[in-house]
Formats: sequence, structure tokens, C-alpha cells
Amino acid sequence: MAFTTKATIASFGGKLFKLSHSSTVTGTPMAVNLFVPPQALAANSTYKAPVLIYLSGLTCTPENCSEKGFFQHRASQLGLAVLYPDTSPRGLNLPGETDSWDFGAGAGFYVDATQAPWNKGYKMESYIARELPDTLFGDAEYGRYLDRARVAITGHSMGGHGALTLYLKYPGKFASVSAFAPIANPSNCPWGEKAFTGYLGGENRDEWKKHDATELVRSGDWKGKDLKMLIDVGTGDNFYKQGQLLPENFEQAVKEAGAEGVKVRYQQDYDHSYYFMATFSDEHVDHAAKHLGLL
Amino acid sequence: MAFTTKATIASFGGKLFKLSHSSTVTGTPMAVNLFVPPQALAANSTYKAPVLIYLSGLTCTPENCSEKGFFQHRASQLGLAVLYPDTSPRGLNLPGETDSWDFGAGAGFYVDATQAPWNKGYKMESYIARELPDTLFGDAEYGRYLDRARVAITGHSMGGHGALTLYLKYPGKFASVSAFAPIANPSNCPWGEKAFTGYLGGENRDEWKKHDATELVRSGDWKGKDLKMLIDVGTGDNFYKQGQLLPENFEQAVKEAGAEGVKVRYQQDYDHSYYFMATFSDEHVDHAAKHLGLL
Repeated sequence: MAFTTKATIASFGGKLFKLSHSSTVTGTPMAVNLFVPPQALAANSTYKAPVLIYLSGLTCTPENCSEKGFFQHRASQLGLAVLYPDTSPRGLNLPGETDSWDFGAGAGFYVDATQAPWNKGYKMESYIARELPDTLFGDAEYGRYLDRARVAITGHSMGGHGALTLYLKYPGKFASVSAFAPIANPSNCPWGEKAFTGYLGGENRDEWKKHDATELVRSGDWKGKDLKMLIDVGTGDNFYKQGQLLPENFEQAVKEAGAEGVKVRYQQDYDHSYYFMATFSDEHVDHAAKHLGLL
Repeated sequence: MAFTTKATIASFGGKLFKLSHSSTVTGTPMAVNLFVPPQALAANSTYKAPVLIYLSGLTCTPENCSEKGFFQHRASQLGLAVLYPDTSPRGLNLPGETDSWDFGAGAGFYVDATQAPWNKGYKMESYIARELPDTLFGDAEYGRYLDRARVAITGHSMGGHGALTLYLKYPGKFASVSAFAPIANPSNCPWGEKAFTGYLGGENRDEWKKHDATELVRSGDWKGKDLKMLIDVGTGDNFYKQGQLLPENFEQAVKEAGAEGVKVRYQQDYDHSYYFMATFSDEHVDHAAKHLGLL
């Protein structure tokens, strides 16, 4: 077994497994939570659950959204598994790794770092897009619950950036994408500039564009394509007001590219917290479920 | 206004107000969260929401269940307000007040202490049963959203003990009661013995019985009465296994008393956590809503 089971918790009729595994890509143990719905757990069941990958925001671990996002509520009803990865390697002991809440530990930004010392293990793009699903779907203990051919992705804030960019970078890998308050144009906001400078180099602005949802839409051939994308942003979100999220830039890029199937909703008064996500997670699960053939 | 508004958070179409007020009974500021459903917030609305009081368990503040209990989900649909009080006074600086996680701060046990020094402000029965509702329902800012004639009560663990005992001690005050993993016979478990010894005195075992749900059922005249009571206990709950909850003693007392309308459910594999509560909070809200005339 590739995974060590740290805890098994009954949740909404299914089970939340708190797992740990040794990652080759990051060079560290990685924590990950997996919710398996009741349909896949029933005795003698041959049901294989489609999977929604949820990417967390700055500072978060797999625990935060497992406890406060309530994705399990609707996922359980529909027979969807939910995978909650961590947001960075932890324990590499790189200089400055834990000095900031918005860079280093808890802030991997879902890119493969090219700059020392971060290129040692900060490879969250490869980890999320390849190593974690390959390991999980091939695992004798947990892979048997899951349908590796049906995977969707979502995320919050930094994780919304991760979900949008990985979806756009790997066409066909994910059936749909959604995001809560995503950092939608990281090249142009303080969080993104700090992270990309550190991980990709301050002089490599062209490289930045490959990891920026707005730039990926601008540079690709999306005309007439259905992006199957749902984005929610709260109008009371202080990070939105401070220009960290920039969803309007993303909307403008989508419009100019002529892409279709992109719904961006501005939710009155909602903030950046899990209260916001919990309110709309049922709808994001429905969005994924529709494209995964569950609805 | 009796309440200071510390934060206003959009949640499930309603608003969660994080409040503080000065309590005469405890002699301290008290934090309390209030969820007001959308039906009462709409412009020009004359809708007054019935109220479900949720009593938290050991160590918890109003925040834990507001974030992790998922009560707002169903309460919002039905037009129910939810009130999340704190679990004790905080900041009295009594000797030993913060030495234990299961006694003193965060562990008021919903009784009025008779023993020094705790009788100074540890009066959580009077606070919950009288001062807090009186203050809230009379408040110009927040009382107008609420229907003071329709109140139900629920709680978790120590808060389940609180909900059951206050319900039984004040007939007619609450339309119904429910509990998650309640400390159902505190006179006979380590948590309860420690708390009652400290707050009520080790020699006053007769006094303990007035604050013990099992003993209150044993000593009252409940024959043929509909107690409108729902209790869930997880079979994977370590505190249940350790004999801290003793729901069987309570069930036995109900049976001997000839009371009716008591449903105790043992939920396979569930533990003592908020994952357990979040799974069944919709059903506890429905239980209260039924007796409050909302269903």
C-alpha cells in the first residue's frame, strides 16, 4: 500500500480517510484526505466513484475544507469521491520556508519551482496533475473505490488558481472545473508576484504566463470551446477588493478569446471564508457531477 | 443596544452575527453567535424566526459549531434562527480556571455553581435559560428578527447535557430538545463527577441530581408525556466507549418513567466530532422545526 491510513472518520454516510504517503516529486511525506461516498463502500459494491479534486488556499492543509467546506454533503448524495491534497511540501527545512504565510510552506501555488532552493521539492503541479492521481488510482487499498477516467477539479483562492490553471494546461484531464474566489491573474497581484518571483524567477515574466489562468486563456485557441467552468466570487471579499483575485481580467480574457461555458457569479456580501464556500459547495459539486455523468 | 457586533458574515443566504454583550449573571463580557435566516432579513420583512439554541461541548466557543456544525444549511431553508452561546464565562481569573480542559473556562456545564470561587460567575444555567434570551429578545437591533414564543434547544456532549437538563428543568420553555452524544448521566461519569464536585460540592449528591438528565427523568412525573426528544450517539465515539455519555442509563430511566416521544439512535461508526454532527444536523433542525411549526 502506498498510503498510510492515519484516521478513518464516518462522514455523511461515507468515510473520510486521512492518509499520508511518501512523495517522490516533493521528497517529503504528503498528507491527503479522501472522502469515499457510501455507494462505493457498500459490501460487494462494484461502484467506482468519480473524483472531485479540491485544491486548498494559502495556509490550508487537507483538514480545513474537510471540516468546513461541506463538499461531503452533496458528494455523498451523488456518489462522488472528494480528494483534498495539501498545499505544499512540509518539512524540507529550506531557508525561509516558514517565514511567510503567503510563500513557502502552505503556499506552493501549484507550480513546479525552477528557482533554488524551491526547485528542490516545490513541485506541486507535477504532484497534483500526475503523481498523486497515479499513486491513488493505482493503490490496491483505495484505488478500487475510484473511477480514474472521471475526474473533475475545483479549488479556493490559491487553490482556485491551481484548479483553473491545471485544467487549462491539461486539456482532457479534468471533466470540468470550478473555483471559489480564485487568484485569476496572479501575474498582476501581490500574492502572485511574490510567489512567481520566488518559484519561477523575477525576470522570467514569460514563464509566469504559463501559470496564470488569464494569460492561459489569452494565449490559447479557445474560440467556441465549452470550458465547463463555474466561478464564484463574494462581493464582500476583502482580498477581492484589494485586487488579489482580479476575476474581471479573467472574464475579459474569456470574452476576447471567444470561449464559451464560463459562468462567473458575484455573490452579494460573501467573504473569502469557508462560510462562503460551504454556502455554495453543493452547487459546485452539482457542476462537477453534471460533467462527470452523475446528474 | 445590548450587543456589540464584532462581525457580520454571509452564510447560506442569511447572516451570521458575531456578537458580544456584558453579562450581569457571569460578570463578564460574553461572546455569542446568532444566525438569522434570509426570511427574516429581507427588506420590509415582518417574518420573525423561531430560534434553535445550540449548546456547545467542552472547550468550545461559539465559533466551532458555527463553522463546522452545518446547522445553517437546513435552518436557512426553513427560516430558523440559530443561537450559539459560549460554554462558560471567560476572563474572571479565578484560581485554576484555565488549568483543565474539562473544568473551568470552556466547561461551565450549564449549572449555577454554589461553591467558591466558582459561584462568583459560573452561572451558565441562569445565563442560558434566562439572561441571554431575555436580553436578545428584548434587543432593538436583533430581537426584531426573532420569535420569542418559539424556541427549541439542542447541544453536543456537555452541551447535550445542558440541552436535556434545561429542557427538563423548565417545562414549556423549549418546544423540543435534541442532543448529539450528550453526557446523559453526569453524576456517574468522570467528566460530570469532576464538574459537579467543583461547582456544586462533593458532598451534595442530592443537589447533583437536579442537574442530571437521567436523574431528572427518574424523579419527575413524566408518565405518558411526549418529551419531543431526539438523541444521536455514534458507536465509534471513544467518549461513549469510555462511559462518559451513558445514554443507556438515560434510556432505562425514560422507560421506567413511562415517558414517550424519546428517540435515541446509535449511529454506526460515527465519532464524537463535528463530522458526526454535520452529518445529522439537518435532521436535528428538522426535529426542532417540526415542533416549532415550521414543518
